[in-house]
Amino acid sequence: MTEQNKTIYLDNAATTPTDPAVLQKMLPYFCQQYGNASSIYALGQRSRQAIEEARQQVAQVLGCEAREIFFTAGGSESDNWIIKGIAHQQALRQKKHLITTAIEHHAVLHTMAALEKEGFEVTILPVDKNGLVRPEQVAQAIRPDTALVTIIYANNEIGTIQPIEQIGKVCREAGVLFHTDAVQAVTNLPIDVKAQQIDALSLSAHKFGGPKGVGAAYIRKGIRFENLIDGGQQESGRRAGTENVPGIVGLGEAIALASASMEAKITHESQLRDYVITRILKNIPLCKLNGDAKKRLAGNVNLSFEGIEGEGMLLLLDAKGICASSGSACTSGSLDPSHVLLAIGLPHEVAHGSLRLSFGPQNTMADAEAVCDALEEIIPRLRMMSPVWEDLEKGRTKSVLASL
Amino acid sequence: MTEQNKTIYLDNAATTPTDPAVLQKMLPYFCQQYGNASSIYALGQRSRQAIEEARQQVAQVLGCEAREIFFTAGGSESDNWIIKGIAHQQALRQKKHLITTAIEHHAVLHTMAALEKEGFEVTILPVDKNGLVRPEQVAQAIRPDTALVTIIYANNEIGTIQPIEQIGKVCREAGVLFHTDAVQAVTNLPIDVKAQQIDALSLSAHKFGGPKGVGAAYIRKGIRFENLIDGGQQESGRRAGTENVPGIVGLGEAIALASASMEAKITHESQLRDYVITRILKNIPLCKLNGDAKKRLAGNVNLSFEGIEGEGMLLLLDAKGICASSGSACTSGSLDPSHVLLAIGLPHEVAHGSLRLSFGPQNTMADAEAVCDALEEIIPRLRMMSPVWEDLEKGRTKSVLASL
Repeated sequence: MTEQNKTIYLDNAATTPTDPAVLQKMLPYFCQQYGNASSIYALGQRSRQAIEEARQQVAQVLGCEAREIFFTAGGSESDNWIIKGIAHQQALRQKKHLITTAIEHHAVLHTMAALEKEGFEVTILPVDKNGLVRPEQVAQAIRPDTALVTIIYANNEIGTIQPIEQIGKVCREAGVLFHTDAVQAVTNLPIDVKAQQIDALSLSAHKFGGPKGVGAAYIRKGIRFENLIDGGQQESGRRAGTENVPGIVGLGEAIALASASMEAKITHESQLRDYVITRILKNIPLCKLNGDAKKRLAGNVNLSFEGIEGEGMLLLLDAKGICASSGSACTSGSLDPSHVLLAIGLPHEVAHGSLRLSFGPQNTMADAEAVCDALEEIIPRLRMMSPVWEDLEKGRTKSVLASL
Repeated sequence: MTEQNKTIYLDNAATTPTDPAVLQKMLPYFCQQYGNASSIYALGQRSRQAIEEARQQVAQVLGCEAREIFFTAGGSESDNWIIKGIAHQQALRQKKHLITTAIEHHAVLHTMAALEKEGFEVTILPVDKNGLVRPEQVAQAIRPDTALVTIIYANNEIGTIQPIEQIGKVCREAGVLFHTDAVQAVTNLPIDVKAQQIDALSLSAHKFGGPKGVGAAYIRKGIRFENLIDGGQQESGRRAGTENVPGIVGLGEAIALASASMEAKITHESQLRDYVITRILKNIPLCKLNGDAKKRLAGNVNLSFEGIEGEGMLLLLDAKGICASSGSACTSGSLDPSHVLLAIGLPHEVAHGSLRLSFGPQNTMADAEAVCDALEEIIPRLRMMSPVWEDLEKGRTKSVLASL
């Protein structure tokens, strides 16, 4: 395994390397421009100014006002804050019904479960076999007591992109607030919260070349919501805690840089994606693409291989220096198969043999070729060791994938 | 104002410069070792290992087990999570009474206010003129339905150090959980959560040479508490969100470095502190030291000057390149005088004329001399412009300070 020395990183949906230009912009704020942004002296005011510039950078990308942006510690905090904060306020007006989908990130689904325990009622919309929700499903689920609809913009596992603008329209017309977890979408898809009638949105810096530990919440002005973190007057009194100045500066720079190169990034990543999908589906039998073929994030490949355990596949890829994932990084503590793959109708055994590759702008066609080479060697090797595959080959069982 | 070119930073209680050695340790985790710690491949596992090493570093300083440490985005999140998380669990057993003091950080006091709205009952203990709470006050306030006692270890404004060990003893004997906001205490005072019978504790990296945007919560094993941020399985399933690996590494390194040099730091800072207090009290009339003279953080000076507005004093100091504060940075959004200074019995007008200087290990005796020089020039200048002072000088009013 001499390839170990070069890493081929194909897990950009889990996290991205911090863009060196972003890190350069952050660096002065650690040891030189370290002032507390709430302080009156010049050293503090320079931090304040840096934060407000970053807020402008985020607002410009989302098409909203700077004062509608609140910095957080990441996507999960943003999801929790927005959903719990709005739900608790709406409950004061007897609106205790929430709508979401079966393929949300756990930061949304587990937040829903927490609210259910508090007495909220949650409708979880099913998705079709490609992971799509129809706007009519949302319309039909809305009730007079619906407090909030929350639907993921682009899925982190299968890359399916929802019809967000049409869902936004349905919600606005019904007078119901609409939140989207856009953690995978921001800088990968055009976003305009006004045109798309999005009332609240979550994003995370480390998904687009920014640092870990910082994110943002867009919350349309006029919407009432509770704080998640009470205390000092930071973030207009809505999110307490000394501002993470280097992190916020990094988030602002990363969103600006990644958005400016979005078109080129989409073209580049979709080339790599399509190369891998076409080649693997052609060369490896009993293999299936998960997620929508067209309405799909440019960098996302999600494949299921019959007769394969995901973990073994990932470890053999890792031995070749290839970083990939099976489902989402956030669920790796658990042995359950991905709830997203189950929701699009995959049987447990097929969901277990799934692979997510997610490309970033730094990846090359050589990376795409290398992962195909690797899979074309690894999959047959693993299948030769698999009793499931032996049964299949000898005709003792039927293919699960073929019957889907 | 030619001194502008050199900054004398005397606001280390608001935030500290990141120690360059800490930043060096963090740097690889941005662009090279950027793996998601939940990922199975080597790049991810190296992040996981770095996080667990940092957890050991924190546990070693606090005297607890690594699994009792949870990383957060800072002190405010830790306070909110611990207090709300424990309160909500205790409420299931009909324990809905909380005890705190009048001089807590707003992250505690505003969390208490949020819980009061939910139906909890809060006892706010008064403090004496030096800002001290007596353990007997705590004992007397405890009721059968008390869910939690939360008392700040060392006050962020006046530096007063509470008798934490005795309070811990009172709480443990009464079977009531005890949390302390130790944001100002960690690495500035010896801490041993087992010996001090502390059940939960909050800390923040940027107060001791670590980066902004990361903190930790110690929660003794066996204690039941709710999550604040639901979602992925990070932090043993208790705090969702991709781990801030560089931040966590920085927190671990900063707490280890600052703790290792704590004795020397205390000796050094208290020399500067005592020099300033002695000289200013001697040279400037109608001036008072706030907080306890002995039970006091080594780096903390808090003085009130009669006939002075804090803001003008801070701006003139800033013009000389001296960074100082009036009250806490976290309250600077408001024009109200510090609740801490009011709680120790200062009248509004005196509280308004207060100055906090907080020394760090990087400060020198020259810094201490410079701020004294500056104050000996600025205070008389401001007083000459003050109608309050004119009335005092001409005997038309009596000194408020002299009558305290």
